Amino acid sequence: MTVLRLALLQSAGVLGDVAANLAELDAQAGEAADAGAGLLVTPEMFLTGYELGAQRTAAMADRAASELVPAVAAVARRHRIALLVGLPERLDGRVVNTAVLVGADGEVLGRHVKTHLFGQDERDAFVPGDRPVSVFDLAGVRVAVLICYDVEFPEAVRAAAAAGAHVVAVPTALMEPFSFTADVVIRARAWENQVYVAYANHCGREVDLAFVGLSSIVAPSGRVLAAAPPGDVTSSALLLADVDTAVVEAAQRENPYLADRRLDLHPGPATT
Amino acid sequence: MTVLRLALLQSAGVLGDVAANLAELDAQAGEAADAGAGLLVTPEMFLTGYELGAQRTAAMADRAASELVPAVAAVARRHRIALLVGLPERLDGRVVNTAVLVGADGEVLGRHVKTHLFGQDERDAFVPGDRPVSVFDLAGVRVAVLICYDVEFPEAVRAAAAAGAHVVAVPTALMEPFSFTADVVIRARAWENQVYVAYANHCGREVDLAFVGLSSIVAPSGRVLAAAPPGDVTSSALLLADVDTAVVEAAQRENPYLADRRLDLHPGPATT
Repeated sequence: MTVLRLALLQSAGVLGDVAANLAELDAQAGEAADAGAGLLVTPEMFLTGYELGAQRTAAMADRAASELVPAVAAVARRHRIALLVGLPERLDGRVVNTAVLVGADGEVLGRHVKTHLFGQDERDAFVPGDRPVSVFDLAGVRVAVLICYDVEFPEAVRAAAAAGAHVVAVPTALMEPFSFTADVVIRARAWENQVYVAYANHCGREVDLAFVGLSSIVAPSGRVLAAAPPGDVTSSALLLADVDTAVVEAAQRENPYLADRRLDLHPGPATT
Repeated sequence: MTVLRLALLQSAGVLGDVAANLAELDAQAGEAADAGAGLLVTPEMFLTGYELGAQRTAAMADRAASELVPAVAAVARRHRIALLVGLPERLDGRVVNTAVLVGADGEVLGRHVKTHLFGQDERDAFVPGDRPVSVFDLAGVRVAVLICYDVEFPEAVRAAAAAGAHVVAVPTALMEPFSFTADVVIRARAWENQVYVAYANHCGREVDLAFVGLSSIVAPSGRVLAAAPPGDVTSSALLLADVDTAVVEAAQRENPYLADRRLDLHPGPATT
């Protein structure tokens, strides 16, 4: 049995103000570490804000390697806690929407590049990723990372579970009128794959968007372990819950969806 | 725009008493037809009851072609309404768990054979089907049929939607402690595929099983259009809702999950 205490930040952030968002990351990382958490998950594009438009997004992406990611690493090192932080990056010349995973020692463990872009604004700003799932080992707990729209596709979460994930961590920026995803879809994803899902959303508003909040950490049973308020607030919320690999294994025995798939009729990823 | 008024029966039925179940089918088909419904959906194995055990199931399956299906056809003809009825059949020598679709003129339009068998009891009683999805045209409305455990696999409903289904009709026998499926998963399936889902469950008890009831007809938006009570009752419920192909088409434009799938990363069925 291996347990990872997970912390999840719901925040309005400050659009375009990296220093302010880094300051909040630092404060929340300290609080999460004090509460015994081993990983803190932020919303999508938390470090820069979401609704920047293509041009400012690209400018922020150009600061990622030299400035933004090192600043995140410094926060992780300072508080001895792993961080999964959403931001734009420029990788291989392309502007991508990523979540970077930094270990408690400040080492960059990897990243997920958002594979399903939502709507024309995202397609204007980003090139989509082409790795279906990104799974990282944190001291024996396998953490898969998806970003926002990715998790709405059952195929993506299935791929994460088949790859052995215990928890799917999802930085997101879910806005009105899509609260159905936070209310219903996230629980279904956990249940149908018998994994934890940690869904970290924005609250508040940006430009013409009203985020729905409703961040949550859901157990493999579909039970909500921790939930944040709806989005019409600007105050942040820090959720905590334990991810227990033994719970995942028991759930997969009790509800053997992964094993009972008819891969002969519906081809999909084999379990690893 | 094409509209099909759908009726859905939640019933305890009478285990092993085909005559009693046919009498209820006849009464409910009459009521559904009077309400303007074009299709009545029953629970899984409604005609015979669910928890028969392998031996009695096989004996019932042997009566299907000569007696049970013709009796269903007679009910359809009498009330001029299409019927989707769950029963065991023997097909090509194998005992299978099916839902037979009979047109309003009594013609057998086809059947779905349950592809995902649930637990050892079902594996002892049945051979699983090998057609991933069964879709039928009812006067311009495309009706996909899945049975119980089938619908819990997102892959199966995705295949139905990709094949052009407007509604997925699901005879089921969902028992405690699995009400999560009726409460949450069914709505997620409708939403993530932008199809109607009609989920027709048993109520009451059979042997050591307590069915959860909670049958529903859900819109492509995930909204519950009609819902039946929990399973701790023996009285039947007849739900009604309209399936409107224009609503499906508008929902698929608004939430283009089918089009936005990354088939290059997560291979799946192409839309037809």
